[in-house]
Amino acid sequence: MSIFIAVDLGGTHIRAASFRPNEITPLKHQKIKTRSKNEAVFGRLLGLIEEVIPANETLGAIGIAAPGPLNPRTGVILDTPNIDEWENFPIVDKLNDYFNIPVYLGNDANLAALGEWKYGAGRGHEHLLYLTISTGVGGGVISDGHLLEGVDGLGAELGHVTILADGPICGCGHRGHLEAFSSGTAIAKYVEDQLKDPSTASSLRSSSTRTAKTIAAAAQSGDKLAISAFDRAGKYLGIGVASFLHIFNPSVLIFGGGVSMSGDLLFKPFHTSLKEHIFGHTYLDNLKITTAELGDDAGLLGALALVEMKT
Amino acid sequence: MSIFIAVDLGGTHIRAASFRPNEITPLKHQKIKTRSKNEAVFGRLLGLIEEVIPANETLGAIGIAAPGPLNPRTGVILDTPNIDEWENFPIVDKLNDYFNIPVYLGNDANLAALGEWKYGAGRGHEHLLYLTISTGVGGGVISDGHLLEGVDGLGAELGHVTILADGPICGCGHRGHLEAFSSGTAIAKYVEDQLKDPSTASSLRSSSTRTAKTIAAAAQSGDKLAISAFDRAGKYLGIGVASFLHIFNPSVLIFGGGVSMSGDLLFKPFHTSLKEHIFGHTYLDNLKITTAELGDDAGLLGALALVEMKT
Repeated sequence: MSIFIAVDLGGTHIRAASFRPNEITPLKHQKIKTRSKNEAVFGRLLGLIEEVIPANETLGAIGIAAPGPLNPRTGVILDTPNIDEWENFPIVDKLNDYFNIPVYLGNDANLAALGEWKYGAGRGHEHLLYLTISTGVGGGVISDGHLLEGVDGLGAELGHVTILADGPICGCGHRGHLEAFSSGTAIAKYVEDQLKDPSTASSLRSSSTRTAKTIAAAAQSGDKLAISAFDRAGKYLGIGVASFLHIFNPSVLIFGGGVSMSGDLLFKPFHTSLKEHIFGHTYLDNLKITTAELGDDAGLLGALALVEMKT
Repeated sequence: MSIFIAVDLGGTHIRAASFRPNEITPLKHQKIKTRSKNEAVFGRLLGLIEEVIPANETLGAIGIAAPGPLNPRTGVILDTPNIDEWENFPIVDKLNDYFNIPVYLGNDANLAALGEWKYGAGRGHEHLLYLTISTGVGGGVISDGHLLEGVDGLGAELGHVTILADGPICGCGHRGHLEAFSSGTAIAKYVEDQLKDPSTASSLRSSSTRTAKTIAAAAQSGDKLAISAFDRAGKYLGIGVASFLHIFNPSVLIFGGGVSMSGDLLFKPFHTSLKEHIFGHTYLDNLKITTAELGDDAGLLGALALVEMKT
């Protein structure tokens, strides 16, 4: 029986692994750094994939998880952070030309949702909402057992939904998106902005690097500014999630991403805000709220789930 | 071959019609007023359905479109405007007990989306967004050929999505929902609020009834307050729709409901705002924006589409 290759194109590392059908323990697994001064990414990717193909096995298909924007229908990466040379890059055609087997491409947050649904915290649910909270806010949705992608695969951009028109500017340049409140970047930006007022007292003032992680540590030590930054992120996350529940009415909500590891710091204000903003208790009665189970493997297992869904 | 019955439970009228499979011209069609002083609604509904069953035909199934909140999975109307006696009313079981055929229930906005998809402005599209703008704002979504309902059928409540946290109060009691800006009720409420300032000049001041319709007429005659009310509704509609496009990436957006008949008054500011708030032009490049084709028959044909989908 032929084997599947899954690839996770991350900002820092590219990972590839080979799997037998219906098994999630890889046969072989390798990773390389995404950037290299001397060699083009695509050639190194080909080498990486060849390295994980076990001897005497036939390749069945390749699945790729990549950060957006990309078009899963045409197999083109439109633009990708950290790989400058990949603008309108037809990765599916290129890999298909080389390996001569079917190749499938998906947005990493959508595929993480698919991976959690098939192998992780979402097993057994047909209506799933996945939110990853890290430097940005990303989303993935399974509705009635179908991955929500949209006509050009640009759907489920749940970080780029306006929750406060005329609010703070988001990384994308628009105002008041969920990502502009609840991402790690937004938490750090809020702290920077507050520190511009010289009367703001905070242990973070003397800190050389202020990231969501160091701000979380300061909050754990009782720093008021740090606590208020997470309170704000959690409050707006609750407002955004209430809207998402009204839209998707899922039975499971899964949080992934580094910032979602902050525990009560983020989730206490989140839950208070969610209860305050939800339309009716029925949306919460049948909802399980949990954290992602696949960790660093989300992209890889999501790409595997994509291949298994398509073949 | 057995025939289908479709029922549209409206606030003012209840309509019922019988159809042959794959035909949208009814065999028989009747309507009654929803309220009656002397008789309970359910008995009158049974009579109405019996009236539209043609002689010598076998009944196959019944589909019902009703205003929410309702649970299409259990067939229970949780609460419905204009029919006080129907709280937690198991309409599907009741009709099934009486007629002994399958009965299917759906939210009227979701079914209008389904109807437009199958018989109206959405034919040929697999990713559809439907928005009805009347006294409230309702939504329906088809994603990859599947109606988005959620685990308890409470999904696609697109009017109750927060676009301005801490904004004006919505009919549901929460703040800053799309419905609180762009519904007919919100347009009228905005005018009332502005008229509280005695210095606001407007032809509407002397008007005895101020509804979205009379405000639209005043705007057509150049009334500045009336124009600003539609400008505001259109601006926030554009903000909300930009978010919905980021979420669903549909290939067609269909507007239904009375307020969506206001033409440029609403849609000029809407388009300006949508272009301003959209994440990238790709979301608009492959999008057709149009108006509903089924008019008053949306609920009835939506209920028919539901039956045909289920049987």
